[in-house]
Amino acid sequence: MTERIRIGIVGYGNLGRGVETSIGLNPDLELVGVFSRRDPLSVTVADPATAVYALADLESFADRIDVLILCGGSKSDLPEQTPELAEKFTVVDSFDTHAKVPEHFATVDAAASAGGNVAIISTGWDPGLFSINRLFGEAILPQGKSYTFWGRGLSQGHSDALRRIPGVAGAVQYTLPSEDAIERVRAGENPELSTREKHDRECFVVLEAGADESAIRETIVTMPDYFEPYDTTVHFITAEELAREHAGMPHGGFVIRSGESSPGVSQTIEYRLALGSNPEFTSSVLVAYARAAARLAARGESGAFTPFDIAPGLLSPKSPEQLRAELL
Amino acid sequence: MTERIRIGIVGYGNLGRGVETSIGLNPDLELVGVFSRRDPLSVTVADPATAVYALADLESFADRIDVLILCGGSKSDLPEQTPELAEKFTVVDSFDTHAKVPEHFATVDAAASAGGNVAIISTGWDPGLFSINRLFGEAILPQGKSYTFWGRGLSQGHSDALRRIPGVAGAVQYTLPSEDAIERVRAGENPELSTREKHDRECFVVLEAGADESAIRETIVTMPDYFEPYDTTVHFITAEELAREHAGMPHGGFVIRSGESSPGVSQTIEYRLALGSNPEFTSSVLVAYARAAARLAARGESGAFTPFDIAPGLLSPKSPEQLRAELL
Repeated sequence: MTERIRIGIVGYGNLGRGVETSIGLNPDLELVGVFSRRDPLSVTVADPATAVYALADLESFADRIDVLILCGGSKSDLPEQTPELAEKFTVVDSFDTHAKVPEHFATVDAAASAGGNVAIISTGWDPGLFSINRLFGEAILPQGKSYTFWGRGLSQGHSDALRRIPGVAGAVQYTLPSEDAIERVRAGENPELSTREKHDRECFVVLEAGADESAIRETIVTMPDYFEPYDTTVHFITAEELAREHAGMPHGGFVIRSGESSPGVSQTIEYRLALGSNPEFTSSVLVAYARAAARLAARGESGAFTPFDIAPGLLSPKSPEQLRAELL
Repeated sequence: MTERIRIGIVGYGNLGRGVETSIGLNPDLELVGVFSRRDPLSVTVADPATAVYALADLESFADRIDVLILCGGSKSDLPEQTPELAEKFTVVDSFDTHAKVPEHFATVDAAASAGGNVAIISTGWDPGLFSINRLFGEAILPQGKSYTFWGRGLSQGHSDALRRIPGVAGAVQYTLPSEDAIERVRAGENPELSTREKHDRECFVVLEAGADESAIRETIVTMPDYFEPYDTTVHFITAEELAREHAGMPHGGFVIRSGESSPGVSQTIEYRLALGSNPEFTSSVLVAYARAAARLAARGESGAFTPFDIAPGLLSPKSPEQLRAELL
């Protein structure tokens, strides 16, 4: 492929911004522009050279775009956008509502097949890279158990729950994998662990003037569902510290497969992500899968695909010969 | 696929034995038999129900075998066997001489294409799973550095070097990833590290009666190339302890990719294997790729493939629908 792959970004939040940055790190890709439902003049892009267009004008770009990277949300944007746009374009999304993947796949597959286009759904890290590692784990060690741990990561829902407590001026909550649970899994104990047993919660809270620290701590650690069932730590900090130390969106986690290849012989596979920015990493994965989508489309394939259907080599800008010589 | 995939094993050392055991853990696979250059009556298989045949009779099994798993060595067996057998059969190997992969691929590809068969080479963990993780790492984080660490693992060559020292009655040597180097990589320092700086060496030595412990320790830690350049620890143990604690063939290691998705935002991907038995794990990987090979062959594909060319879903006995619903 000597021509650069021409990419359009649909939607410009944290994910769209991350894709814009990531494309700049990949010399074989070219950003045609950002397509937004907002007034293009009101969208402030990271790179002033990035063109911004109205989403309504997207169809006129059909001949100028190889792949659209869809950066909307899984709740209401992607269930409509991915099938709609897959009729006209090669598309990639990071749809992440696990329970609705089969339904999303079916609607996208119908649309992409009808349009003769390629659509890769649910790229990202979970679903995505973690899913691939769950699959490899059970295919290679059929006699074993798989564990997924999330964190250390910012949880929006739990941060919001803290902010709703009267007397709290600001707060963030991180979900952490429980060290104790990880050690038991790594040791090959194959324990039965609920999501609760696998995770701890850490809160950083800024109080309003005059708020009662010990009463608020009690409100937090006893909050049903959100904090009560977990090992929860609460730190009270200043507004300055919150702004300085907790503005990022870190995340990550582990997938561990522990099994026996014969009686008494234990084997452990562990895949771990430590992400400085959750949206930027997801964007980086989306961009690699956009390259794969362009290649599948160039081969004349069509329909919906997931990361399970994509050969690793398609993600790399290197040729198969180069990959075999340099990375195998 | 309702019929079971019929597998033949070529070569019966540690790897062949591991494949025999692994097939027993995979209900969609069926072992037709072991094919050996030795007299079949002299081969003692792990499962008495396993049939053993002379390798010379293999061709008469052409209609009864879907995939041959080649369990010979990379030095002299596979360079000849894989192309020769790929002319007649679908084959999978774990060829692991990194520098000769392009050459091996070319000869196997020519033979497999001529025969209209599928051949997947260099499965296993390095090359194999580690290679896939090196590829994913650089495709997702183009601005970054990749590190491969091996160990804790038994090194045959270094164990042999210990055993050749006069006064040594028995010994094993393990290669360990250097904790210090790992910490620097995990911390995102992106250090330049030689293989030597990345690894330590640990020796377990049984002395002959009357041997001089401190002289032998000195001989070991100053041995050029083998031990002198490394941080080397020597433990003197009894013959009983050697037999009891050091008869296994553990191995493993890490692939770490550390990069930035934007200035100052660091992202780390880490893939780690802790293997109770190196040959049994390699066998388990070979078996999963045998399933993929059968599926490619059923689709009418032909030629040589590497793990870079194999979509993850092909490794699993589950259907694409099941995989999307259960693992994505």
